[in-house]
Amino acid sequence: MFPHMTRILIVNSNTTDSVTARIAAAAGAVAPAGTVIEAVSAPFGLPLIVTRADWLVAGPATLAALSARRGSYDAAVIACFGDPGLDAAKELLDVPVLGISEAAFHAAAMLGRRFAVVSFTAALRPMFEDCLDHHGLRSRCCGFRMGPPFNGDPGRVAEERRELLIGLCQEAVEQDGAEAVILAGGPLAGLAPVLQPHVPRPLIDGTQAAIRLAVALAGLAPHGQRRQERKLTGYDSAVTSLYAGRA
Amino acid sequence: MFPHMTRILIVNSNTTDSVTARIAAAAGAVAPAGTVIEAVSAPFGLPLIVTRADWLVAGPATLAALSARRGSYDAAVIACFGDPGLDAAKELLDVPVLGISEAAFHAAAMLGRRFAVVSFTAALRPMFEDCLDHHGLRSRCCGFRMGPPFNGDPGRVAEERRELLIGLCQEAVEQDGAEAVILAGGPLAGLAPVLQPHVPRPLIDGTQAAIRLAVALAGLAPHGQRRQERKLTGYDSAVTSLYAGRA
Amino acid sequence: MFPHMTRILIVNSNTTDSVTARIAAAAGAVAPAGTVIEAVSAPFGLPLIVTRADWLVAGPATLAALSARRGSYDAAVIACFGDPGLDAAKELLDVPVLGISEAAFHAAAMLGRRFAVVSFTAALRPMFEDCLDHHGLRSRCCGFRMGPPFNGDPGRVAEERRELLIGLCQEAVEQDGAEAVILAGGPLAGLAPVLQPHVPRPLIDGTQAAIRLAVALAGLAPHGQRRQERKLTGYDSAVTSLYAGRA
Amino acid sequence: MFPHMTRILIVNSNTTDSVTARIAAAAGAVAPAGTVIEAVSAPFGLPLIVTRADWLVAGPATLAALSARRGSYDAAVIACFGDPGLDAAKELLDVPVLGISEAAFHAAAMLGRRFAVVSFTAALRPMFEDCLDHHGLRSRCCGFRMGPPFNGDPGRVAEERRELLIGLCQEAVEQDGAEAVILAGGPLAGLAPVLQPHVPRPLIDGTQAAIRLAVALAGLAPHGQRRQERKLTGYDSAVTSLYAGRA
Amino acid sequence: MFPHMTRILIVNSNTTDSVTARIAAAAGAVAPAGTVIEAVSAPFGLPLIVTRADWLVAGPATLAALSARRGSYDAAVIACFGDPGLDAAKELLDVPVLGISEAAFHAAAMLGRRFAVVSFTAALRPMFEDCLDHHGLRSRCCGFRMGPPFNGDPGRVAEERRELLIGLCQEAVEQDGAEAVILAGGPLAGLAPVLQPHVPRPLIDGTQAAIRLAVALAGLAPHGQRRQERKLTGYDSAVTSLYAGRA
Amino acid sequence: MFPHMTRILIVNSNTTDSVTARIAAAAGAVAPAGTVIEAVSAPFGLPLIVTRADWLVAGPATLAALSARRGSYDAAVIACFGDPGLDAAKELLDVPVLGISEAAFHAAAMLGRRFAVVSFTAALRPMFEDCLDHHGLRSRCCGFRMGPPFNGDPGRVAEERRELLIGLCQEAVEQDGAEAVILAGGPLAGLAPVLQPHVPRPLIDGTQAAIRLAVALAGLAPHGQRRQERKLTGYDSAVTSLYAGRA
Repeated sequence: MFPHMTRILIVNSNTTDSVTARIAAAAGAVAPAGTVIEAVSAPFGLPLIVTRADWLVAGPATLAALSARRGSYDAAVIACFGDPGLDAAKELLDVPVLGISEAAFHAAAMLGRRFAVVSFTAALRPMFEDCLDHHGLRSRCCGFRMGPPFNGDPGRVAEERRELLIGLCQEAVEQDGAEAVILAGGPLAGLAPVLQPHVPRPLIDGTQAAIRLAVALAGLAPHGQRRQERKLTGYDSAVTSLYAGRA
Repeated sequence: MFPHMTRILIVNSNTTDSVTARIAAAAGAVAPAGTVIEAVSAPFGLPLIVTRADWLVAGPATLAALSARRGSYDAAVIACFGDPGLDAAKELLDVPVLGISEAAFHAAAMLGRRFAVVSFTAALRPMFEDCLDHHGLRSRCCGFRMGPPFNGDPGRVAEERRELLIGLCQEAVEQDGAEAVILAGGPLAGLAPVLQPHVPRPLIDGTQAAIRLAVALAGLAPHGQRRQERKLTGYDSAVTSLYAGRA
Repeated sequence: MFPHMTRILIVNSNTTDSVTARIAAAAGAVAPAGTVIEAVSAPFGLPLIVTRADWLVAGPATLAALSARRGSYDAAVIACFGDPGLDAAKELLDVPVLGISEAAFHAAAMLGRRFAVVSFTAALRPMFEDCLDHHGLRSRCCGFRMGPPFNGDPGRVAEERRELLIGLCQEAVEQDGAEAVILAGGPLAGLAPVLQPHVPRPLIDGTQAAIRLAVALAGLAPHGQRRQERKLTGYDSAVTSLYAGRA
Repeated sequence: MFPHMTRILIVNSNTTDSVTARIAAAAGAVAPAGTVIEAVSAPFGLPLIVTRADWLVAGPATLAALSARRGSYDAAVIACFGDPGLDAAKELLDVPVLGISEAAFHAAAMLGRRFAVVSFTAALRPMFEDCLDHHGLRSRCCGFRMGPPFNGDPGRVAEERRELLIGLCQEAVEQDGAEAVILAGGPLAGLAPVLQPHVPRPLIDGTQAAIRLAVALAGLAPHGQRRQERKLTGYDSAVTSLYAGRA
Repeated sequence: MFPHMTRILIVNSNTTDSVTARIAAAAGAVAPAGTVIEAVSAPFGLPLIVTRADWLVAGPATLAALSARRGSYDAAVIACFGDPGLDAAKELLDVPVLGISEAAFHAAAMLGRRFAVVSFTAALRPMFEDCLDHHGLRSRCCGFRMGPPFNGDPGRVAEERRELLIGLCQEAVEQDGAEAVILAGGPLAGLAPVLQPHVPRPLIDGTQAAIRLAVALAGLAPHGQRRQERKLTGYDSAVTSLYAGRA
Repeated sequence: MFPHMTRILIVNSNTTDSVTARIAAAAGAVAPAGTVIEAVSAPFGLPLIVTRADWLVAGPATLAALSARRGSYDAAVIACFGDPGLDAAKELLDVPVLGISEAAFHAAAMLGRRFAVVSFTAALRPMFEDCLDHHGLRSRCCGFRMGPPFNGDPGRVAEERRELLIGLCQEAVEQDGAEAVILAGGPLAGLAPVLQPHVPRPLIDGTQAAIRLAVALAGLAPHGQRRQERKLTGYDSAVTSLYAGRA
């Protein structure tokens, strides 16, 4: 049996609370009974994460959020495409930690032999290719279908490009042979279930996939190796406390 | 919320009921509250599945078992390393279907950047390499640690080679840098939690990983495309009924 | 010297005798002197093979055809793109067995450093990509050129899309740098020699390539390992007899 | 029907006639009825080809031999591991040209899903790895089994290391899961059929595989594209004549 | 002509000044005339960088050092195996930035078709494999030769394991076919020229390779794209100033 | 310190002196102080190198040029896309030798995580793909942008297609996410610095990259292994002298 209550911490790696609220809503919609979800923003860093440099500086900020609540969750989700801080978090924490890119790729791969990535703008493609390579799943991706540059309000892109996105998903299925479709990009969080009726293959939402998989893996990480205390300077106490020793 | 009750069908692709019972026990040990698990043997085929030809003939037998109970489960697991019939089952059924090799690889990849495969005999290595290639995750595997040929009673290998297996797991961690270890091979089902205290990294049991992931993905496969009825001959009615049309 | 007479069995993995007849004609056109070719349909299964599930169920049907005539041929060809049952047949039979996808890829790779795949409809692309990956030759393929969906009579597609296909072959050569071109898809069997005068690079017909290569490899498979008798149930006697023991 | 008579030219890329004679004997042993084989040495170059630089300078020498007999053969074989001049020969000649490494890899891949390379000395391994990469078949090779440095008479290595080689072949099958084994290295030409009774999987001889495949592919290369005459200097007339124009 | 004076900043990503001094000495030994080298330690972070989490937290510390001296150098080197902060630095700075792993791989690849990595302890292998994958050069690496665990004083390992290292380099050349050898690991900085007389192939020192390549590439990065000012919080002013706007 | 004077030999692998002059000019523009550059044409071979066969015959011609001036240079550059003779030259000479394709790929990879290849005609794409595979850097290339067939005077293509090339570079950056762009093709030598102001990412000229990297690596190749004299026939004395023994 799983523990009766599974506690999931979800960290938005940027500092924008409205995004955190949207993520929390998407997460809550798929949390199974017996699951408690808490969503927090990064305590410092950037309001929006776009480039490789952003991923780097968002990494310690994500670690700080994870560290601050240590002991209060059974698994964690890093809710930012690009998965900032993910490898470090897996190493430093004693519970499973999943990124939403990682979770989307694995869920899509289990639901369909060929998966496509659909998003509202092609600007995200290099980031997704980096992530696919990092997670080793590039060969399972049958293509990208992405819209033209978008300069409007990210909060409204899901609505304004709804028809475009449905069309891109359908093309991915019909022309690329996609058997599952990842609907990617922060501003589209929670949109997959809404568009699903229009697409004949599973539509994957990264946040929701991560919640499902985090619940599934909770309890599987053992306490790990002893660690010597090491002295880390220049970071806030939440980050440095991750370098404290452990028996 | 997930459905209040998640029903998982687990199919042992061979015809040996004692193996099915062991699989059911391993599965039951990780089923979360609200999950109902049913385990069945293949209705025909082989008592033991070892080679590529075996996988092929075990495929329709696995489909027959899946088909016979259609409608009574929300996700299914094919509990045979090598995942016989998996691609066909994913295509023909309207619920998620996972193989235990597939599940072990994905779970291990999410729990550690480099995972090792440990088993009691090297004879299984080609099968695992085929599977890793098929699922696209070869680059995440940092090596195999496997024992010498075993000619004893498979039902006793877990006990007889217990110390050997612990040693292989430890070598995988220390010498190959494995961050997660798959304990692979049918006769080792359920052994991972027993050996976990002796290994400082997550030990993955394929059956248990598959149950966890199947629960996680239940509900994500949409009803799929309409299908025309097609006439399949030469198989039992459970298999041929999968080719009936669907509106 | 090769044996004076080389006997090739060619199995159409589907049950449609008119297709078997067309395959036999294509095969006969390239059989060298001293070769006897017999073509048979699958004794059960599907009239047309299109999807991954179809490949699976066509596998045992193909094995049944191969088994029924065991001892009467020196090499065999599985004449169905996707190569159903191929790995199992290689394992269970004591003579070389080639699939037509496999043969097309290897022949094309030996005739040109970069080969293209041309077909009348893009619906076949995922199958060919799966096959290329399975045979390890994806890196030799420089691209696909395929027509739009075709809803007409498959028996007439070679004629109706003749000009389209010539154009696609030429584009593959001129724009993709293809040095050999596979003309793929069951309904195009035998078309390559007809279109060859219009294309300045070798055009490969899968069936004909397979006949050529099967003749070439006949005699190279040794009698193999002893096998214990194993009990297979649920299949017709031709399939189960493949599991009989062998000294 | 194939042409009644198939003429194969086999070029030994080095200048040592005794090696050419051994190659001719190995080739003759598998030539089917209706095949005429001519074997020639390179007209210039090196007596032994060992390194990458050797391959390069052996390339034009091989082209010279191929050019000198142009019109007198239907397919050609370059009988030197490493395949010197192969890509150029495929481009410049209007008949199929195969290298013996290339042929060994393709034949092995068609006879077994995993093939091993066995040779008398590990010094050849980098060359084989280069060749596997060049032909795109590295993923099909399950390993190398090679003997220690050999400083004796190459003409006697096949005899002196016979038991060693049998042992290496058996290890490749039993420990690496090889389903076909390439017996590689010039001094081992013709040895495969001799050792075959001791190994339970197909043993591949590069020269013999190349003869079989060259016969199979003869007639498949069309006359190719028109070419403008281009002026090549510094080579003997056989090489420069390959750059003459062609209508 | 290059600028008359090329200024290189070399950042030791850890905070240990004695290591910085050793790096500076190794760097100075290969600086061409007209080059000015400045070496600095990370202003915060860790005294030793060993794990993936360490790389992450060392990244912003490395950026801080690079930022603090912005405008005073024409190219920069990150002198820490694992290349912390490298991708971000390439993105945020207007001059070329090289990591010493990156530089070692590229230099080795240009000096030999197959390169080996030799170090005093196998504990570094996963890090090097990650780096090879990240830089895309895994296929050029023909193997690792590494010593057993070392628990002594890192400052003395170069001396204590001198003979072991020479032996490993020689094995890499003779048994693995290495044509260049990277002598890797922070404590071995500057050792390659000392051991070179004992190894018949180029020995690569990461720091020295990076200095050479940084001088070579200085001047090649254009001023880049305009950037909007973005607000980064939680880091010291050197890091946050990298997010200031740029016309 | 580097030697006070670094001497670079640059070999144009074709026989056209006007091309050699253009190459020399491009090279001279980036030679650092203290560098002496000599540029020579191949002493025999072809006036233009276009195909794989051309690469082969240009190889010994390139070796002849390199050999004729042996002892007078510290590093060498083979200034022909496709890098004819490169592997042999690296093996036979005691100084670093770089090809301009090789140099362009490595420089681009160090300046940007994703690089594009831009050229005036798509006819060069297969050659670049071969080269990328040979050097192992295919995964770093994010795409090709190439113009339509060009039948004009190669000496004028840089001028006539200037606007087209700028457009292709910009598309590579904006649509493919290129972070560095290689401007490829012999007739474009020296063009990169001219177009750089119009492209917001580093533009790489192969010749200039090779000069920079050759200066950087000069001195890194040790004297290598002893060699036995070997007898090479059929080549001019410059080539055959490379096979003379060496203590």
